[in-house]
Amino acid sequence: MSDVSFYREEFLNYLESKMLIKEPENLYAPISYILKLGGKRLRPVLVLLSTEAFGVSYKKALDAALAIEVFHNFSLVHDDIMDDAPLRRGQKTVHEKWDLNTGILSGDAMLIKAYQLFENYSVHQFKDLAKLFSRTAIEVCEGQQYDIDFETREDVSIQDYLKMIEYKTAVLVGASLEMGAIVAEASSQLQKEVYEYGRLIGIAFQLQDDYLDAFGNPENFGKRVGGDIIENKKTFLYLKALEHSSEEDADQLRHLYTIFPSDAEQKIETVKHLFETSGAAKSTQDEIFNYTQQAFEILENLAIKEEQKKLLKELGESLLTRTI
Amino acid sequence: MSDVSFYREEFLNYLESKMLIKEPENLYAPISYILKLGGKRLRPVLVLLSTEAFGVSYKKALDAALAIEVFHNFSLVHDDIMDDAPLRRGQKTVHEKWDLNTGILSGDAMLIKAYQLFENYSVHQFKDLAKLFSRTAIEVCEGQQYDIDFETREDVSIQDYLKMIEYKTAVLVGASLEMGAIVAEASSQLQKEVYEYGRLIGIAFQLQDDYLDAFGNPENFGKRVGGDIIENKKTFLYLKALEHSSEEDADQLRHLYTIFPSDAEQKIETVKHLFETSGAAKSTQDEIFNYTQQAFEILENLAIKEEQKKLLKELGESLLTRTI
Repeated sequence: MSDVSFYREEFLNYLESKMLIKEPENLYAPISYILKLGGKRLRPVLVLLSTEAFGVSYKKALDAALAIEVFHNFSLVHDDIMDDAPLRRGQKTVHEKWDLNTGILSGDAMLIKAYQLFENYSVHQFKDLAKLFSRTAIEVCEGQQYDIDFETREDVSIQDYLKMIEYKTAVLVGASLEMGAIVAEASSQLQKEVYEYGRLIGIAFQLQDDYLDAFGNPENFGKRVGGDIIENKKTFLYLKALEHSSEEDADQLRHLYTIFPSDAEQKIETVKHLFETSGAAKSTQDEIFNYTQQAFEILENLAIKEEQKKLLKELGESLLTRTI
Repeated sequence: MSDVSFYREEFLNYLESKMLIKEPENLYAPISYILKLGGKRLRPVLVLLSTEAFGVSYKKALDAALAIEVFHNFSLVHDDIMDDAPLRRGQKTVHEKWDLNTGILSGDAMLIKAYQLFENYSVHQFKDLAKLFSRTAIEVCEGQQYDIDFETREDVSIQDYLKMIEYKTAVLVGASLEMGAIVAEASSQLQKEVYEYGRLIGIAFQLQDDYLDAFGNPENFGKRVGGDIIENKKTFLYLKALEHSSEEDADQLRHLYTIFPSDAEQKIETVKHLFETSGAAKSTQDEIFNYTQQAFEILENLAIKEEQKKLLKELGESLLTRTI
């Protein structure tokens, strides 16, 4: 989809133009560093494309797109501290390259900077953008807290898990699309609907991420296949498998999710086998299909031109097929 | 000043009414904990009093006052991590009572919550409040970074130091008063002037804090007298003393600021003697007087009723005499 690369390029040019290192350097250099580390720039592209889909030039949405990207990178900096992660996109994380305090303080400054990026919009747009942003940002924090809590909880239900991925991932997809609608001054009805479309696509996207982590093609999937299994991560596949397995199989699966064998291949194969025989693999695919269908239904009923619907549909499809 | 205790009580009642523990508990319990730890509630009282000074009921300012207090406590939670502080107001700090990750994530959520507290104001007030808040919050981050940088820098000038305390402390005093003016729908001229009044009082307040740390009466000063000297903190007194001392005295002072003797009393006495003989103690008092005079001049020219001026003047005086 050539549109996507065009908007990504435009976004990168804008990002570059805004990256001035100010004093105190120890606060601002890490911000510039993390923002230039790369990534697919998925969320800002969604903002720009959504603005165009609602009939307004993406140029008006560059600040809102940058706000979303700055927020996303704020959450990466703080999450990397919490996960004690040494690397991000193959480079040192901020707290590794500098130190813990720099990671905390630069992250804080990024969160504030994100709000400042809405200041060039009208008072009404400013309030709509900032309100949506705050609600979403709080949900992302809540999602992160649930994710941390789930690591040590044995009673995570499928519903708990869906809420966690909704908050941690999907709401930001919805908010990116809604911001485009706000910038384009679409009706509040359309704003809500396009948010809902993004939220559903976002959940489908994350479930697919869980699925591909076990069953993806190593050549196309960006991360190491089996990574979640190695780390004993309680994903949708795992929770569904527990739900649908015989007691014996469930016990075996629970046991496998307590060990870290030095050669993980045998464990990965056994777990994947349990995911398939329990029907969890199939259920996950069904669930992805359901969320995708619900999303496209909302899109179908959206009161915008067919051509603009097509743009949003292609956007959703390219998210799910990982071509964006 | 009975007004102050009245507004403090009203603020505390409002705070209490807003403190509902939500799910996920691990995110929200630390927020409630730190907000209930106590403190003088100086900044929210400034917001409420300023609103009244501009002729509008403090009740309209409760959300803005709470936003300032939530922000202040956010900065305490993250600063305590950076300073590795075990205690805050005699109780465990958040990262000690819970853990590092909880401190980071709860702090983040507080920063976002502060913005949400402006949402009940009109679109114009919302934008004015959020813009002022963002600018101030970024300056507080910059001030914190300068403070960290100064610990390992040998070339800190008086001007650098004044900028640091302005950003770390004084801008929030200015912003608290300006928020009152925004809530009261005072003219933008008055908003700027009352901000400037608060900023100058805030600098005088911090310089006085430096002065009292060495020369205060242990019975009135809230902290341990000599604490900055024990910690080798490069305060205004220290920088002025270096500037005005003979080379010999300056060398002695520099040396004393590299050691941590087990019995600090001798060091404290020698340093205080150098502060006095160099004229730094006097210079600091002069500087406090200058900032205070400048502040009261601005107040004198403020186009509001005499009675309201008196309220703001008493407020400044009670800040400087520590009766607030």
